[in-house]
Amino acid sequence: MERIRTTEAASHLGEAVRLQGWLHQFRELGKVNFLILRDGWGTFQAFVDDPATLAALRAVGVESIIEVHGRVTAESQAPGGVELHDTRVTILEPVTEPPPIEVNKRELRAALDTYLDHAVIGLRHPKRRAILRIEAAMIAGFRAHLRGVGCTEINTPKILGTATEGGANVFTVDYFERKAFLSQSPQLYKQMAVGFFERVFEVGPVFRAEPHATTRHLASYVSLDAEFGFIEDHRTVMGYLTETIRAMVEATSGCLDDLALAGADVPDVPSTIPAIYFPKAQELIFARHGIDCRGEPDLAPEHERLLGAWAREEYGSDFLFVTGYPMAKRPFYTHPNPDDPRYSNGFDLLFRGLELVTGGQRLHRHADYLAALAARGMTPEPFAEYLKAFRYGMPKHGGFAIGCERFLMQLLGLSNVRLAAIFPRDLNRLVP
Amino acid sequence: MERIRTTEAASHLGEAVRLQGWLHQFRELGKVNFLILRDGWGTFQAFVDDPATLAALRAVGVESIIEVHGRVTAESQAPGGVELHDTRVTILEPVTEPPPIEVNKRELRAALDTYLDHAVIGLRHPKRRAILRIEAAMIAGFRAHLRGVGCTEINTPKILGTATEGGANVFTVDYFERKAFLSQSPQLYKQMAVGFFERVFEVGPVFRAEPHATTRHLASYVSLDAEFGFIEDHRTVMGYLTETIRAMVEATSGCLDDLALAGADVPDVPSTIPAIYFPKAQELIFARHGIDCRGEPDLAPEHERLLGAWAREEYGSDFLFVTGYPMAKRPFYTHPNPDDPRYSNGFDLLFRGLELVTGGQRLHRHADYLAALAARGMTPEPFAEYLKAFRYGMPKHGGFAIGCERFLMQLLGLSNVRLAAIFPRDLNRLVP
Repeated sequence: MERIRTTEAASHLGEAVRLQGWLHQFRELGKVNFLILRDGWGTFQAFVDDPATLAALRAVGVESIIEVHGRVTAESQAPGGVELHDTRVTILEPVTEPPPIEVNKRELRAALDTYLDHAVIGLRHPKRRAILRIEAAMIAGFRAHLRGVGCTEINTPKILGTATEGGANVFTVDYFERKAFLSQSPQLYKQMAVGFFERVFEVGPVFRAEPHATTRHLASYVSLDAEFGFIEDHRTVMGYLTETIRAMVEATSGCLDDLALAGADVPDVPSTIPAIYFPKAQELIFARHGIDCRGEPDLAPEHERLLGAWAREEYGSDFLFVTGYPMAKRPFYTHPNPDDPRYSNGFDLLFRGLELVTGGQRLHRHADYLAALAARGMTPEPFAEYLKAFRYGMPKHGGFAIGCERFLMQLLGLSNVRLAAIFPRDLNRLVP
Repeated sequence: MERIRTTEAASHLGEAVRLQGWLHQFRELGKVNFLILRDGWGTFQAFVDDPATLAALRAVGVESIIEVHGRVTAESQAPGGVELHDTRVTILEPVTEPPPIEVNKRELRAALDTYLDHAVIGLRHPKRRAILRIEAAMIAGFRAHLRGVGCTEINTPKILGTATEGGANVFTVDYFERKAFLSQSPQLYKQMAVGFFERVFEVGPVFRAEPHATTRHLASYVSLDAEFGFIEDHRTVMGYLTETIRAMVEATSGCLDDLALAGADVPDVPSTIPAIYFPKAQELIFARHGIDCRGEPDLAPEHERLLGAWAREEYGSDFLFVTGYPMAKRPFYTHPNPDDPRYSNGFDLLFRGLELVTGGQRLHRHADYLAALAARGMTPEPFAEYLKAFRYGMPKHGGFAIGCERFLMQLLGLSNVRLAAIFPRDLNRLVP
């Protein structure tokens, strides 16, 4: 008999079926005894009355690997309206010790560090694994959308000969007895790739030696990068980004059970996401809250929260573009606003008051790069290969980078970005 | 007027169109003058007779960024049977120097090192970028197939606290003043993930500090990993792998132009790929070629080539499974052949005589892991989190890892695996 998945059981009503998985729960309530089987996709309840089966179940612990035969039966009390009757269980791999963290209660109650220490088992909890399945769906949506608009996927180097994007938060590698660096972002490579594919995207790990322990920073995370040639300016990129975010949100509709388990609050993505110009945003914060950040070169997390609340109130939008960040705080490749070169054609996208995406238009002329590097007191030598792309013809271009775990954190209302990573890495954590 | 892509031009026969891209070529032959425009997707020929346009083109070099207006006209001599007439060109970004490597000749003639030094420009050559587009298609095929059979995509850590998979070829990282290691493979993590998703896959970089300069090794490459729970044995995995390889090959049919440009020799994937048991393979090599490798614990590249030729001759297959590699040379997590424990339930898949995939059934019992580590003189401590997965219930499982660049190398008949990577990394190369 073909094995079926727990998620397929309801479509086999009245039939004899075979399932396999983990013994998620076994409850003896006297007259009513049942087990819950968990497989890779869901859980399914089986009513148990066979004495031999009860005896076998009593002899092992939860998380044992089992095979279950029975008949799918309508039962209005059961989750999903069906359960298994005439249940026979074979123990495939017995587990005798209770797991270090309980994965079969409705909520996984453990302090963050305890949970993270035992994530190898903790991720078996239906609510916990749901997060990773939603992540997979969102990434699939990201890729499918960008392929659809003509982007080519690239896989750029993660070990670099020079620490090109700011030397501070970079990890060093011993590379055949030379010093090398882990990539903080595929930024420079995706720009080079515009030279051959015009439109590119990459999904991959980036590495940031963040010395701060905050709830929203990881030392390595999944960056969702895209870059587009032949744009008008940053607004073209904002349009592409809006469509990409919508596609990612829509892709989660393929895992409604996981959204429900994880308690997702799925946002509407407006056809045009509201945008506010950086100095205007500072004026607004001053006018509304009396907090004077006017003239500062960046927004603090608190300012982002206030702007997020305003966008919600004013436009009913969970998303807000802040455009025109001051050039002073943006990297050398940032394109200035031609009408006011103190400000940039760079933007952030806030989602529920948190910076989710950074993007913008980039410089595209070789001479502009040389000038931008010189103005920052940087030498062009470490950028020799990158600069080649601009020396030999590059169109106006721009792009964005979405922090995947941050998107999940905000979508699911997680208290810490570490809960959105399979096995997070931070200042203190290298295991599991 | 909406910009169209070069690849869309033929469907606009008779229409006035607007294109943008790079000036790939400009040829004045006296009466017949034409340019070839290259955009992110293809190239398109434009007949030029307007004196002002000719003057503008004479003033700039190839790789200049241009906008082209004209009318799509049937022309049997032109590639694709259409070309642009009434051509008007606007120079958007002039290039004045010739590029360091010619990208507009039919073949990119440069020594390997010269090409790799200038890959930022060299990848603009239509034949070169075709390789990366085929790669993207194959990876998309890999993912789509595995999602279709119920796998969940995972993104596992690339910085590790312990050098778990053999200490030799591992890169070390300075991790907040502690010593850490770059992941050589997601092997241990994908097994742990079987504990929550049963079926998983990952596409990501792996890092191997290979001290040898060969034509088929990279210090970092894209590994296509999958792992499946509730298998019978390694043969279940071989079945999944066969279907995955077929899906990857079929996915290349979405880029026929690139296959033609890159000179791909697309293989048939048999419904059942022939398989030979390791000691039988050694007997065969001895019988056919008089080379006596019987009793050796592994196959040398030359042996793989001979076996590949035999599979071609005997079965008409470009693929051959070699099963039952000796336990002595396989990693500690390898499941032995229950009928002859000297040999393993591990396999390699050869493609045209080169190892393309390694896979097999893994141990799944906690006690077996402890015994396997002890037998190899390894301590369990560094594997504490990994071993937790097995302590608390794991089904029979197995999986495989496909070397993405190697697959491309063999598919396209490339002389060196470096030509299949966007910007390869090896003993000597960290740039671009």
